[in-house]
Amino acid sequence: MDHDAYLERLGATTDEPADLFEHFEQRSFDGRTYHVLTDARHGLERGTVIVEDAETVIRGYPSIPRLLVLEPGVPSFFEDAETVAVEEKLDGFNVRIADVGEPLAFTRSGYVCPYTTARARKLLSLEGFFDEHPEKTLCAELIGPETPYTTTDYEGVDTHDFRVFGVRDRESGNPLSVVDRRAICETYDFNQPRLFGRAPPDTAAAELVRDAIDELDAAGREGVVMKSEPGDAMVKYTTEAQHHDELAYAFSLPFDHGRDFVFSRLIREAFQAAEFDEDEARLQERAHDLGESILVPMVEAIQDVDDGETIGHRHTVRGDADSIDALFDHLHDQSMTIELESDRREDGQRVVEFVKVAESSRDRIAHYLEGGTRDE
Amino acid sequence: MDHDAYLERLGATTDEPADLFEHFEQRSFDGRTYHVLTDARHGLERGTVIVEDAETVIRGYPSIPRLLVLEPGVPSFFEDAETVAVEEKLDGFNVRIADVGEPLAFTRSGYVCPYTTARARKLLSLEGFFDEHPEKTLCAELIGPETPYTTTDYEGVDTHDFRVFGVRDRESGNPLSVVDRRAICETYDFNQPRLFGRAPPDTAAAELVRDAIDELDAAGREGVVMKSEPGDAMVKYTTEAQHHDELAYAFSLPFDHGRDFVFSRLIREAFQAAEFDEDEARLQERAHDLGESILVPMVEAIQDVDDGETIGHRHTVRGDADSIDALFDHLHDQSMTIELESDRREDGQRVVEFVKVAESSRDRIAHYLEGGTRDE
Repeated sequence: MDHDAYLERLGATTDEPADLFEHFEQRSFDGRTYHVLTDARHGLERGTVIVEDAETVIRGYPSIPRLLVLEPGVPSFFEDAETVAVEEKLDGFNVRIADVGEPLAFTRSGYVCPYTTARARKLLSLEGFFDEHPEKTLCAELIGPETPYTTTDYEGVDTHDFRVFGVRDRESGNPLSVVDRRAICETYDFNQPRLFGRAPPDTAAAELVRDAIDELDAAGREGVVMKSEPGDAMVKYTTEAQHHDELAYAFSLPFDHGRDFVFSRLIREAFQAAEFDEDEARLQERAHDLGESILVPMVEAIQDVDDGETIGHRHTVRGDADSIDALFDHLHDQSMTIELESDRREDGQRVVEFVKVAESSRDRIAHYLEGGTRDE
Repeated sequence: MDHDAYLERLGATTDEPADLFEHFEQRSFDGRTYHVLTDARHGLERGTVIVEDAETVIRGYPSIPRLLVLEPGVPSFFEDAETVAVEEKLDGFNVRIADVGEPLAFTRSGYVCPYTTARARKLLSLEGFFDEHPEKTLCAELIGPETPYTTTDYEGVDTHDFRVFGVRDRESGNPLSVVDRRAICETYDFNQPRLFGRAPPDTAAAELVRDAIDELDAAGREGVVMKSEPGDAMVKYTTEAQHHDELAYAFSLPFDHGRDFVFSRLIREAFQAAEFDEDEARLQERAHDLGESILVPMVEAIQDVDDGETIGHRHTVRGDADSIDALFDHLHDQSMTIELESDRREDGQRVVEFVKVAESSRDRIAHYLEGGTRDE
C-alpha cells in the first residue's frame, strides 16, 4: 500500500504517514484485503477503510454530537444554518454500503458484516444505484425485531429492513444535502427515516422538535437527528423511553455493559427532566420509571443465574443458509459465545434463534451469589 | 531514610527497595517529614506512613471487602472462624491516630488532618492511652453533622465526636481481638460502634445480621462490619438507605463523583433486592426510591446552576481558631475551592460554615445548559 498517496487522498491532519498508518489494522473478507482505522485519528473517523486491490477509500461515519437541552441547544448549534431538518433517529445497526467491486456493508468500526451485506443485496436495489453512483456510499440502518444486533420493533417491519439516512461521497465523506438525499432514495425505492419537517434554528425546538420528541416518546421510539439542510451539521436528541430502554438493556447484563453506558444515560435523563418536567409529579413519575428500568432487569438477571439459566441477548435471524453460516463465523471471529436455541426452515428461508451469551455478567453474578466478596 | 531497614520492618513482598519506595511520597506536617505509600503495593496498604525522625511506621488501614449476599456470603467468608462479631459501620471520616512524638491523625490516604488531630486531642484521652500503649494506633471514625468531611447525624452527637472501631499495632497492623479492643476502649472512655452481638458463622446472617440491617435501614444508618473474634477477618454489608443516600450524594454533584461510584451502588442494590425483597411490590418500592435518589438531586443541581447558585458540599466545623485556620490551609493544599458562608464565635469556639465548591459539576452543567454538545 502506498502510504504517501493514501495519506493525501485521506486528507489526514498529519504529514507523517507512520503516525496515521500505525493505527490501521489489516482484515480480510471473501479474499479481499482491507485496512481499517480502529480509532478516530488525525481528522479521520474511526472505521475509515482502505480496500487495497480496489484502490478505494471509504471514510468512517462521523460521530454525531448530542444535545442535552433543546433550548438554547438547537439555536446555538445551528447558528450558521438557515433551516434545520428534523428526522427520526432509528434504533438499528448502522452500516456503510459501498461498491468495492461488489457491494459490501461495513460496520461503524469497519468490519464487513456478511449477513448485513447479504440482506442489503437482497433488499436494496444496489446494482442500479451503484451503476449510477459508483463513488457514493449508502449510510443505512438495519432495523427490525429479527437482526443479529438489535431487536427493536418498527411498525410495518415484521422481520428486518433497511432505512437509508445518508448518501455520502465515499472518499471525502461529504454528504448529499437532505433534499437531494431524500430525492435519490425515492428514485431507488430506498426506505428512509421519517422527516418531521424543517424550521429555522430559532423556532425549530419549540415548533418542531418538542412535538416530535413527545410523539416518539409516546410510541417508545428513540429520538431525532437534526441536520442543517446541506447535511454537514448534525446533532441528536433522544426520548425518555429510549433512555429507560437502554438502561434496562444495560442492566439486564450489568457486568457486560460498561459503567460509562450507565452514567451518560442518567445525565441525559436529568437534563431532559430539568427542561421538560413541568411539575413534581411528572418528575417523580420519571424517577420511578428510571428506577424500575435499572433495578428490575438486574434482579431478573440475578434470579436467572441463580436458576441456572443462560443470560445474554436473544436474537432471531432469517435469510439464506449461506449468509447465516457466514454470520455465525463472523460472530465467532469477534469472540462471542453463541448458544443456538432453534434452527428451522420457514418459507424457503433459514430461521435461527440464538443467544449472545453474556459471560462476564453470568460469571460475576455467580461469584457474588456464591458469597464471593467485592473489593472496592 | 534507610530503605533496606524499612523494607524489612514493613515486611513488603519485594526484595528490591526501589520497587516499593518509588511509590512513597514525601509530605510534611508541623515541621515533621513523613513518607506515604500512595497506593497499595507489595502487600502494604495504601496510606502506610513512615515518620522519619521518629523512626515510626504506621501501617495503612486495610480495605474491607464487601458481601453482596448474606447467604451464603457470611458462612463462606467466615468458614475458618468460630464466631462472628457484628458491629455497626459508621458513616464518618476514618483516621488512624498514632503517637509519633505527639499524637497525629492520619487519613486513609496518609495525610495528617490538622483539624481531626486537634479534635482528637481535645475529645479523646490520648495521653493516658499512649502512655500505656505507645506502639498502638487507634482506628477511629470522626462522625456527626459538624465535620469537614461528612454530615451524617447520629443520635446524641450534636456536633461531632469519635468512635474507635479498632486498636492495632501501628507497625505490623495486627489488630486487637474484638473483646480486647472493646475492653481497652472502655478503660479509656473511648466511644465505640454498637456491638449487635456474636454468633457462629452458619447462623449469624439469619439470627443477627438480617435483624441488624433491618433496624439500621429503618433508622437510615449505614450498615455493619462483621469481624472474626480475633479481628483478622472483616467484611462489610450495607443498608438500602445507605445505597440511596450515597446515590443522592453522588448525583447532587454528578460530574464530581465518578462513574464507578454509581455503578457499584446499583450493583449492591440489585443483589440486596434479589435476596431481601420478597414480593414485587417491595421491589417496585425500592426501584422507585432508587430512581428518586438518582434523578431528583441531579435535577436540583441543574436548577441551582441555572439559578446561578453555588453547588457543592456544605459543612460546618467548630473548634479553636487555630485548628480551623489549619483546616482551611489543609483543604486549600488539596486544591479545593472553598466558599465561606459564615464565620462566628459561639461559646468560646469558632464556628464556620463553608461549601466545598463542586467546580466540575458546576462547569459541565453550565456548558450543557448553554447548549453545549456532548460527544460520546
